[in-house]
Amino acid sequence: MPKKDDIKIFKGLENIYICETSISFIDGKEGKLVYRGIPVEVLAEKSTYEEVVFFLWFGHLPRKDELEEFEDEMKSARKLDEEMKDMIEKFKTSHPMDLLRTIVSIMGLSNSEKKKSDEEKALEIISKVPTAVAYHHRISMGEKPLEPSDELDHASNFYYMMTGRSPDEKISRIMNATLILHAEQGLNASTFSAIVISSTLSDLYSAITGAVGALKGPLHGGANEKVMELVEKIGKPENVESEIEKMIAQKHRIPGFGHRIYKTFDPRYRILKRYSKEMVRNDEDERYYRIVERMEEEVLKKLSGKGIFPNVDLYSGILYKFLGFDRRFYTAVFAVARLAGWIAHIFEYSKMNKIIRPCGYYVGPMDVEYKPLEERE
Amino acid sequence: MPKKDDIKIFKGLENIYICETSISFIDGKEGKLVYRGIPVEVLAEKSTYEEVVFFLWFGHLPRKDELEEFEDEMKSARKLDEEMKDMIEKFKTSHPMDLLRTIVSIMGLSNSEKKKSDEEKALEIISKVPTAVAYHHRISMGEKPLEPSDELDHASNFYYMMTGRSPDEKISRIMNATLILHAEQGLNASTFSAIVISSTLSDLYSAITGAVGALKGPLHGGANEKVMELVEKIGKPENVESEIEKMIAQKHRIPGFGHRIYKTFDPRYRILKRYSKEMVRNDEDERYYRIVERMEEEVLKKLSGKGIFPNVDLYSGILYKFLGFDRRFYTAVFAVARLAGWIAHIFEYSKMNKIIRPCGYYVGPMDVEYKPLEERE
Repeated sequence: MPKKDDIKIFKGLENIYICETSISFIDGKEGKLVYRGIPVEVLAEKSTYEEVVFFLWFGHLPRKDELEEFEDEMKSARKLDEEMKDMIEKFKTSHPMDLLRTIVSIMGLSNSEKKKSDEEKALEIISKVPTAVAYHHRISMGEKPLEPSDELDHASNFYYMMTGRSPDEKISRIMNATLILHAEQGLNASTFSAIVISSTLSDLYSAITGAVGALKGPLHGGANEKVMELVEKIGKPENVESEIEKMIAQKHRIPGFGHRIYKTFDPRYRILKRYSKEMVRNDEDERYYRIVERMEEEVLKKLSGKGIFPNVDLYSGILYKFLGFDRRFYTAVFAVARLAGWIAHIFEYSKMNKIIRPCGYYVGPMDVEYKPLEERE
Repeated sequence: MPKKDDIKIFKGLENIYICETSISFIDGKEGKLVYRGIPVEVLAEKSTYEEVVFFLWFGHLPRKDELEEFEDEMKSARKLDEEMKDMIEKFKTSHPMDLLRTIVSIMGLSNSEKKKSDEEKALEIISKVPTAVAYHHRISMGEKPLEPSDELDHASNFYYMMTGRSPDEKISRIMNATLILHAEQGLNASTFSAIVISSTLSDLYSAITGAVGALKGPLHGGANEKVMELVEKIGKPENVESEIEKMIAQKHRIPGFGHRIYKTFDPRYRILKRYSKEMVRNDEDERYYRIVERMEEEVLKKLSGKGIFPNVDLYSGILYKFLGFDRRFYTAVFAVARLAGWIAHIFEYSKMNKIIRPCGYYVGPMDVEYKPLEERE
């Protein structure tokens, strides 16, 4: 055993590099995020989710014929098998992330012994997961679930299956943008779970199942649901100041703020804030928007000196609410988007694979005697 | 972005310490493994699986009353719900690890919104998983699945449910020993997956689902199945030398040999070898045993100079075969045992939790122009 002075413990693996990557780059000081060299704001404004998926997975922006083929493949894989529909019906009261984790695992069962390529599996997962999430959303809202529409792009079809409404041009842009903004973010905990699992040469379904489980956690994707719980608890803009003060005094983490890497404004937050504002349609929406804006003002006043700034989760919750999504599904909407990044990293890491196995530094006792049961105190 | 010269990439996180631990210590040079200070050989000879689970989870050997209570709690949680039985029946042709991953995820569904303590969830998982694996094993062998027996200890009951036979004293000891030997092994890839997932404060089912997915990989738990495939391919002891020579010449990894940490004989290998020998009952068993022993001789002769020695997987496959387990289930039997270590590490890490989020070093392009679709080549 090495001596304690000779070793260093890297808690949370903060600032530890585990591989090279060409997928995305975050400049946490400047608040920049690029996917393969293109700023995320540009992609959110101009690109579609399908194009970004292709770009993240294969490394170049698709030509027209490549994109059309890719879009067709994604469209044709959207429908759920009957057994998945049965499972969703049967477990409709479960948390959407628990059910999604199970659905991805079940996708792997049907293909357990089949020889699909990883690209085929990836297309299946990224195409069917939005359908499964929307199917569950509709049933749990007491609405009839909808079949996917071949007329709509990936993001617009997801909106349609979630809400039953056909999106206008503005909503199509917002849906594409929010999926693009949430598509990729380096080696966060869920992406890293997927990499660790696939580093054993296990399969794609196992890796994505693990990633969904990790994203569920309130320190990760679960935060957007927590923001909304807090907004509802606060109730009106006038209550924000005292509630935030109380949370800071009690050293509670404030959901929607702070990030391991960003030490300034998260570039995604600005865009989501703008879209949230554009989606305000009535007094209730206005009240929600004002609460979040007041939270932002208070936290910035009190904590920005400590490097705590609004993150991607702050406005995504109310944006999803204004779009008509139920709160319990916010993290699942995040998962629908993040599949792009998870799979991009699995593909990339597999080309330089090394099984991931860190160490724990043993501080327990040595030479413990195994006392017979009768002699123990 | 830091300059490339200023950073170091820790591939596979080899020799990187991520936390302190008091659960187990491996001395890879001396070939020693202790659980909380007691050599694993002592526990394999004298202890029971239930006792080792208690010891790993709670940090001390149980008193008589503590052990009895713990055994009773485990016994009373063994039975499967009808919906799990239905799932196993429905997907009985799937790979046992894919189905096990799904079953653990489904356990989380039923409890999705219930407020069970983590200890209750852990007891449920460790008690029901062997029943689920055995249920699948029996069905896939065309046999009637069996209900758990309250008369038997955990390991003996697992053997009974797998094979339909009541274990004699020798088999009970071997079953306890093999589960104890596979119970814990530091921050291997599956345990680390579980820790990464639960570091987001996600739930125990998500963490164990991820761990099962990681263990499935042929670079990890899947290796014992691969050893047996190789043994069957080799067919007879006389063929060993040429096959091993060929694999070495082609730089193929030889399953059952080599380990990230052990650079000498794995202490678990010796015990499993002895038990395999004791379980030889006929000429066919003898032939299998001789093939593995010849593999060991050849690999040691050719590769021990490079630090490649037999590992835990080398004899576990034939031991499981001699016990009557089907080859496709070997990794699932490993999972049944390793639940102890996965859960021990989740409990331990949660007390010092920090979300795990490493970095990738960006080597991709910057300032890439977003060309309109029509202008791309």
